[in-house]
Amino acid sequence: MPSVESQAQVDLSKAIAEIRASNPNLDPVLNGLILEEWHRLASEPTNLTYEDVQCPGSVRPAIWCKPLLASSSHVILYFHGGGFSACSPSSHRKMAGHLAKAAGCYTLLPDYRRTPEHPFPAQIEDAIATYQWLLKDQGISNHHIATAGDSAGGNLAVTSVLKMRELGLPLPSAIVGLSPHVDMGEIGKSLDTNAQTDVLVTRSSVRRMTTSYLRDTPRDNPLANPLHADLSGLPPMYLCAGSVEMLRDDAVMLADRAKRADVDVELEISEGMQHVYTFMAGKAPEAINTINDIGRWLKNRLQE
Amino acid sequence: MPSVESQAQVDLSKAIAEIRASNPNLDPVLNGLILEEWHRLASEPTNLTYEDVQCPGSVRPAIWCKPLLASSSHVILYFHGGGFSACSPSSHRKMAGHLAKAAGCYTLLPDYRRTPEHPFPAQIEDAIATYQWLLKDQGISNHHIATAGDSAGGNLAVTSVLKMRELGLPLPSAIVGLSPHVDMGEIGKSLDTNAQTDVLVTRSSVRRMTTSYLRDTPRDNPLANPLHADLSGLPPMYLCAGSVEMLRDDAVMLADRAKRADVDVELEISEGMQHVYTFMAGKAPEAINTINDIGRWLKNRLQE
Repeated sequence: MPSVESQAQVDLSKAIAEIRASNPNLDPVLNGLILEEWHRLASEPTNLTYEDVQCPGSVRPAIWCKPLLASSSHVILYFHGGGFSACSPSSHRKMAGHLAKAAGCYTLLPDYRRTPEHPFPAQIEDAIATYQWLLKDQGISNHHIATAGDSAGGNLAVTSVLKMRELGLPLPSAIVGLSPHVDMGEIGKSLDTNAQTDVLVTRSSVRRMTTSYLRDTPRDNPLANPLHADLSGLPPMYLCAGSVEMLRDDAVMLADRAKRADVDVELEISEGMQHVYTFMAGKAPEAINTINDIGRWLKNRLQE
Repeated sequence: MPSVESQAQVDLSKAIAEIRASNPNLDPVLNGLILEEWHRLASEPTNLTYEDVQCPGSVRPAIWCKPLLASSSHVILYFHGGGFSACSPSSHRKMAGHLAKAAGCYTLLPDYRRTPEHPFPAQIEDAIATYQWLLKDQGISNHHIATAGDSAGGNLAVTSVLKMRELGLPLPSAIVGLSPHVDMGEIGKSLDTNAQTDVLVTRSSVRRMTTSYLRDTPRDNPLANPLHADLSGLPPMYLCAGSVEMLRDDAVMLADRAKRADVDVELEISEGMQHVYTFMAGKAPEAINTINDIGRWLKNRLQE
């Protein structure tokens, strides 16, 4: 049974659906502003400071989340979700801040380029630029870096590491995907079986997002769709998703393929939960539990 | 000459005007979301933590802004602006956080009830409830409290103190109004003389706001319009406004009436600046200067 607190995400999703229904042909700018409201699901993380930082791969300033007493030499490079077109470091700072606290390290939230103006692979290029800035300018060891992200950002958390491997860069020590969206070919069964239970994602929103991101790029391009990538040699992965969301099988299939490539994988499917339920960080017990689990898992993966 | 950095507020205001022009009859919910974007004008204040807090007079959680090393027994009670109908503690937390740092104290941002569902005097009742919670539940001395706010919140920063006096409550030690909106009778000359230079406020937006807030309440009700109030005995006031904004004379006239009532008043009119230019806290020099000035001024008013 989902917790009473987790109803907040269902309520916000329904409010968003209502405002979209009463405002057909919604201006994309306004649609983007609606999604900024996701931040309201999380509590303000206490004992944590923020700092704007201009860095490569970030159009507007990136945000550092700096928990008091955390290690500044260990960093989660967090790519916000929002279908490659919406949301921002601001909408995700609270969730990413809770994650930083759970892992006892800093989190960096870059503001990568967006669709439709900038399709694939601009976002991956930006992710690489930010990663290299962490390595070279900030002097952070790759052994102390994890990539992470939710939804479209979860895609980038994986595909950016595939690109790093291609470029011969030292790889980060861990990857975290929160309801990652990787199934560009739409082969996941949950797209159908959870169509009635998912309160946010729809088949048409998935299609619109994929089209805007990939344009003419084949849906099985491994840098866009890691279900078609050689995943061998990738760092340990923690993947989670809600059991009732349409993109559940994105995480399930990615975990399966990664395991078959001998990657160390942790998969958590949270019962009754929706897409990126970790947005309820600090509020709903399911989100709190998952974030704490990831924090413990990361502490073991980001070496001393 | 306005600074190069201050152009950001002009640009954002023009972007808002454009999106409104291309979306006539904009849903009020969406209009509200647009105004949430004001937070982008300020930088993330460093060395400061936030905390959600459930307190009376705040519909959703209020936000504490807690600068590291600041005094927790000195508090700015900050009422966010937004025409009594829009914005939130979230949209104002960065500006209020910079103010807290400048004054070396905590800032509390309540989420008071809004129009059109809740007209005058619901917002003042909420302000009083939050103030009493600070006094009784949090044990903060009235000598260590300042009220503050911008635009409609600047109105509440003054009118709530008038209500406290009426109720026989101990008064706070200072009042800060950032482009306060108090002239409900629209007698200010700047409403006309700055109509061409103000990039955000319009006569119709002022009228709409006043109507929604006051309904049938007379425009000269002293608890709605402090230009008609007996201001004698009020604590020291710091008022500021931009020289090119339509509501400039709200601050000028309020300062004039307060001085005539023997209130200790500081008035700053910042050359070439727009409505609530302090939103550019941490970025534009004009905003930084004003916030630093207010911080120094408050340190002298909030007794040890």
